Amino acid sequence: MSKTPGKGPTDGPLTVEELQLAVRNHSMPLEALRYDITPAGLHYLLIHFDIPVIDAADWRLSIYGRVGRVLELSLDDIRARPKVSLPVTLECAGNGRSRLHPRPVSQPWVTEAVGTALWTGTPLSGLLAEAGLLDDAVEIVFSGADHGFEKGEELDYARSLSIADASRPEILLAYEMNGQPLLPQHGFPLRLLVPGWYGMASVKWLDRIEAVNRPFDGYYQATNYHYRSGPDDPGVPVRRIRPRALLVPPGYPDFLTRQRTLSAGLCRIEGRAWSGEAPIERVEFGVDGGWMPAELDPPQGAFAWRRWSCIWSAEPGEHVLSCRATDAAGNVQPIEQNWNWIGVGNNMAQAIPVMVR
Amino acid sequence: MSKTPGKGPTDGPLTVEELQLAVRNHSMPLEALRYDITPAGLHYLLIHFDIPVIDAADWRLSIYGRVGRVLELSLDDIRARPKVSLPVTLECAGNGRSRLHPRPVSQPWVTEAVGTALWTGTPLSGLLAEAGLLDDAVEIVFSGADHGFEKGEELDYARSLSIADASRPEILLAYEMNGQPLLPQHGFPLRLLVPGWYGMASVKWLDRIEAVNRPFDGYYQATNYHYRSGPDDPGVPVRRIRPRALLVPPGYPDFLTRQRTLSAGLCRIEGRAWSGEAPIERVEFGVDGGWMPAELDPPQGAFAWRRWSCIWSAEPGEHVLSCRATDAAGNVQPIEQNWNWIGVGNNMAQAIPVMVR
Repeated sequence: MSKTPGKGPTDGPLTVEELQLAVRNHSMPLEALRYDITPAGLHYLLIHFDIPVIDAADWRLSIYGRVGRVLELSLDDIRARPKVSLPVTLECAGNGRSRLHPRPVSQPWVTEAVGTALWTGTPLSGLLAEAGLLDDAVEIVFSGADHGFEKGEELDYARSLSIADASRPEILLAYEMNGQPLLPQHGFPLRLLVPGWYGMASVKWLDRIEAVNRPFDGYYQATNYHYRSGPDDPGVPVRRIRPRALLVPPGYPDFLTRQRTLSAGLCRIEGRAWSGEAPIERVEFGVDGGWMPAELDPPQGAFAWRRWSCIWSAEPGEHVLSCRATDAAGNVQPIEQNWNWIGVGNNMAQAIPVMVR
Repeated sequence: MSKTPGKGPTDGPLTVEELQLAVRNHSMPLEALRYDITPAGLHYLLIHFDIPVIDAADWRLSIYGRVGRVLELSLDDIRARPKVSLPVTLECAGNGRSRLHPRPVSQPWVTEAVGTALWTGTPLSGLLAEAGLLDDAVEIVFSGADHGFEKGEELDYARSLSIADASRPEILLAYEMNGQPLLPQHGFPLRLLVPGWYGMASVKWLDRIEAVNRPFDGYYQATNYHYRSGPDDPGVPVRRIRPRALLVPPGYPDFLTRQRTLSAGLCRIEGRAWSGEAPIERVEFGVDGGWMPAELDPPQGAFAWRRWSCIWSAEPGEHVLSCRATDAAGNVQPIEQNWNWIGVGNNMAQAIPVMVR
């Protein structure tokens, strides 16, 4: 199978195909960084195919394969299991892609493919224990009801986790988002939620879960979602979210250019920072290449973004504002692009030009 | 003031400015045409500036100007007035813009900037009667809390209606969408709703309502949102929604190209049709330039889209599917573009290429 999802990188103009994806999927407007929990409809969305039509009354989840006991569960069955709610920040692995040179042709995110929701569901580990994994099971494969084509191959969206990853207590089969049943576009009636990982792991419209005795080689596992230097590099799988900070652009925008204008003087800058690798330890706010430390609010859970703020004394003129996060594992957000063949895991620091008057 | 909102038309490639708008604002995925009422987060969104931060407890609506009695109303005051719920289809005046040649540079919609919600609020006419319009009042100006720049001018988003238009019984001050308080991005805590008109009339984040004794000349009233043949044409104001039908693309998409594949045989095609000018009277489904009548479901209110469907006998090969609506006033949706300087009111028929296997 081709190792080049998408069309490969280009420095050419944006294509109609990228525009079609951009108007379908959407990012979170940066001013929504103000909310601890992203309101419905503002959370980023990346939908590979179409939103499936699913009647919850007819829907069943199968857990099968290398298990002692096959389970067929209704939504009510799953709701009757232990219930956990977790605030979790999800980010698309392709966030930042459109800022790369050359630019991999796929969903053309700028920097805003993120969101934080309060997800409610039952821990996956409990259901796997009920099914009883056989000794030769090495991975769990999660398949969604979303169906389509990638480079001529017809497939359902599917991803796998190792038994160790799948057994972590925070991994949920989620049926509520922000206290309401999942919206159709977020995976109704049930989705996988893999806190700390880029969004591709959290399979939506969950249809079946299979324990398998060899590594899963599906397109979204073995071909797409790898860090590769070029089309022939076998690459490394994309997993946990790299550290990123974003700020709420201050002042007011121009409609077309989105250029910002604000008044000189003391200005409170705020934003959010997150990392799937380790807790956020430091955020710095940058002005024209100089950096100052930001103040961190208390964390709101191990898997959700953390608010930060600082006071900037804005001097008249044009400036470029930025921010960067460092996590407790020592991962520092880069200022230059960390380019790869399909433009994933790109956490280059944000750059917001402003005019202070 | 310049008569050329945006940058004027181009046949050049998509710009970074258009991409920034496309990832911020979003359309309704076409498969969501299946719902009578569009679920939260799938309704199209066009936000000129930033989503304002508004505390409903502090918020007040002023009704002032050429009135006998100035009103200052809290959200509870407005909720205490007579309550009406209406299903209403809203569409962005710029829908279809990216398909034009040459292409006006602004929000680059494809064909999906639409949505239907159940809006709940109080009729505007009742509050205008309470305030008591003076005899010299000629228009009502609605200003939002959204604030920014257009071509160097700093302004709040604002639009006006004539006294006759503002007095129509279906015009609401809406505080609920689909039975829930307005989401921040849809105008929380209160928005104007002008059923039958393109979305620019339904001012969000309503801040104040002023009765004036001469026509309002604000940017979004007098400069933007006009049908103009060129920059020097005084043009005609954009008002009611022109007829449009859209279909749910059948089969399954390719991720990147969105090209559709389906199996040969009988295929149910469904979609929605609407017009702000008059009730929908006829929908035709088109295959490769030939047309067949579609069946219309009963209407779901005077201001909401109407479901249509038909059975297509899909023959193997490549086809282009289309649909077009006709309303009771005799307005027929065109097959060719109805071009204008800023790309508004463009209701050229949809064209969906499919591969039948």
